[in-house]
Amino acid sequence: MNLEQLRKNKKIAILSPVAWRTPPRQYGAWETVASNIAEGLVERGWDVTLFATADSITKAKLHAVIDKGYEEDPSQEAKVVECLQISEIMEHAAEFDLIHNNYDFLPLTYTRLIETPMLTTIHGFSSDNIRRVYHKYKHDSYYTSISDSDRDPELPYLATVFNGIDLSNLTVGKKAGDKLVFLGRIHPDKGTHLACETAQKAGMDLIIAGIIQDENYFNEKVKPYINDKQTSYIGPVGPKERDDLFKKASAVLHLNELPERFGLVMAEAMGAGVPVIAYDRGSCREVVADGETGFLVTNVDEAVEAVKKIDTINRAACRKRVEEKFSIPTMVKAYEKVYAEIFKIEDQKS
Amino acid sequence: MNLEQLRKNKKIAILSPVAWRTPPRQYGAWETVASNIAEGLVERGWDVTLFATADSITKAKLHAVIDKGYEEDPSQEAKVVECLQISEIMEHAAEFDLIHNNYDFLPLTYTRLIETPMLTTIHGFSSDNIRRVYHKYKHDSYYTSISDSDRDPELPYLATVFNGIDLSNLTVGKKAGDKLVFLGRIHPDKGTHLACETAQKAGMDLIIAGIIQDENYFNEKVKPYINDKQTSYIGPVGPKERDDLFKKASAVLHLNELPERFGLVMAEAMGAGVPVIAYDRGSCREVVADGETGFLVTNVDEAVEAVKKIDTINRAACRKRVEEKFSIPTMVKAYEKVYAEIFKIEDQKS
Repeated sequence: MNLEQLRKNKKIAILSPVAWRTPPRQYGAWETVASNIAEGLVERGWDVTLFATADSITKAKLHAVIDKGYEEDPSQEAKVVECLQISEIMEHAAEFDLIHNNYDFLPLTYTRLIETPMLTTIHGFSSDNIRRVYHKYKHDSYYTSISDSDRDPELPYLATVFNGIDLSNLTVGKKAGDKLVFLGRIHPDKGTHLACETAQKAGMDLIIAGIIQDENYFNEKVKPYINDKQTSYIGPVGPKERDDLFKKASAVLHLNELPERFGLVMAEAMGAGVPVIAYDRGSCREVVADGETGFLVTNVDEAVEAVKKIDTINRAACRKRVEEKFSIPTMVKAYEKVYAEIFKIEDQKS
Repeated sequence: MNLEQLRKNKKIAILSPVAWRTPPRQYGAWETVASNIAEGLVERGWDVTLFATADSITKAKLHAVIDKGYEEDPSQEAKVVECLQISEIMEHAAEFDLIHNNYDFLPLTYTRLIETPMLTTIHGFSSDNIRRVYHKYKHDSYYTSISDSDRDPELPYLATVFNGIDLSNLTVGKKAGDKLVFLGRIHPDKGTHLACETAQKAGMDLIIAGIIQDENYFNEKVKPYINDKQTSYIGPVGPKERDDLFKKASAVLHLNELPERFGLVMAEAMGAGVPVIAYDRGSCREVVADGETGFLVTNVDEAVEAVKKIDTINRAACRKRVEEKFSIPTMVKAYEKVYAEIFKIEDQKS
């Protein structure tokens, strides 16, 4: 079957996590990507069922057994709703031609009990321990990575499919803002304190936005910088506030201490025409075109230098890179190719 | 088929948790019971496969994919080894006529994907949230409770099967000891501090044994009593040390703050001829025969009164109650009846 025929004949189930609503109100990277995949597939004519929380918003069919995300409703227990969400899609597997799993490793442990093929987008290895599950089931589920750098060399991957973001929520302002911006989880991994240090050394204002995931870290390493004048913290932001925030930005600082797996925020910033100054770790090199849509640096002093020459970056080029490489249509077209390959392999098996 | 025929023709898989070895070296109630079920079934001629850690000790066939319990090997991640352990038995389900699950709620979420019937011994509801899983799968798995009191009124149970303990590890001393004993997890739920208070008021020595599960509680509420003379803490004990400990006991104090689900330690104490003074909560009334093998009390003052009249309890009667109601053969005979009923129901279905 060609793509057009596959779209007409195959039923796709998208499995989203239930930590947050799909799409999330503010934070929730995996739910964001699952949403973008589901909506993008619907847009291109696929028959899609989204397994997500009951309050989720989608043009696909919604199949829900969990009312609200467990991060949004403390009366729930993560382990309980997680296994109920996953077993639900497995029990309905026969209704679909392909399950596209965006919910980490636990779904893999059900795959030998169902007939329907499953594609797992590996959104990251949260610990080395979980690799063991991916290794056991490497011939039972198809895998894609979200960047070339976030690959386990001993796993088979059908492709790298970059995350695609919703560009309708991001607009390029008439001119660059004059502040530095940190956007993301406040956590040592994300290097919020390095953004503070860079802004201070560069003599620039810094706006920090995002959920505080590590309270101790925030209090000890970030708060001392905050004075609501040069350096302010505005909490988490939804899509609309995020776009307003980018309007104020001359650059986004992404001085991640851990190798980035993909780095949605870098694509979002560039999507709003904002260059990114990122540590050259993990996927950053794949997302940011060094010298063209931002700068890759290895320490705070280099980040300060990058801030000084940020005007040399063409803001239209930032937007263009995202449209070409990190948009929803680009991502969905790439997944369509992966789906087609899976259907071909499955046909040959039977 | 009668029982003799079932024993010859049916293959049983026992699923044990992988927090600890089966049987555990010291603490590990569910692994203890799973072990006793497996060994008791083998003793009575069943074809049994035990799914447990690779270092487990059993006369059944051992099927293991997890080397060591995650509580004994901090390099492992509970969630990872748990799902690998459970998916392993599910992937081998077709090799068995019955799976007997001693591993909580997660296995239930695989049951609609396998043909083999599963019996789940509900060892307790660790939170109200997990009931939701038991409710969803109440027609997919057979349930037994470990005491009449630990039942959810909206769940169907085939029977209550009391836990059975290994009496070969427990001997009745020639005469009663002269100390009070607390044995169990050091945790507010278990009322360790109430045992201390009771011993002090009764003017008796107290020996405390068990793992410290709540360090803050131990330091704040228990440690102040410890002076290594009247009140001492000796850490966790294995079967041999436990029997020695019971030799020193005039009574075991079990002043649990939460309703007990079963209370293995009460059966163990009585198995060594030691009367039990317990709070009248949950299953305690089912395990201790009030006035015959110990006393049920409702506060510390009543516990002190009970200590004073503990000599009125016949130590042989304690042992006899355990032999009759809480021994491995008693438990296994009860499970044999449950298995026979399940096979009958399944036959009628097909």
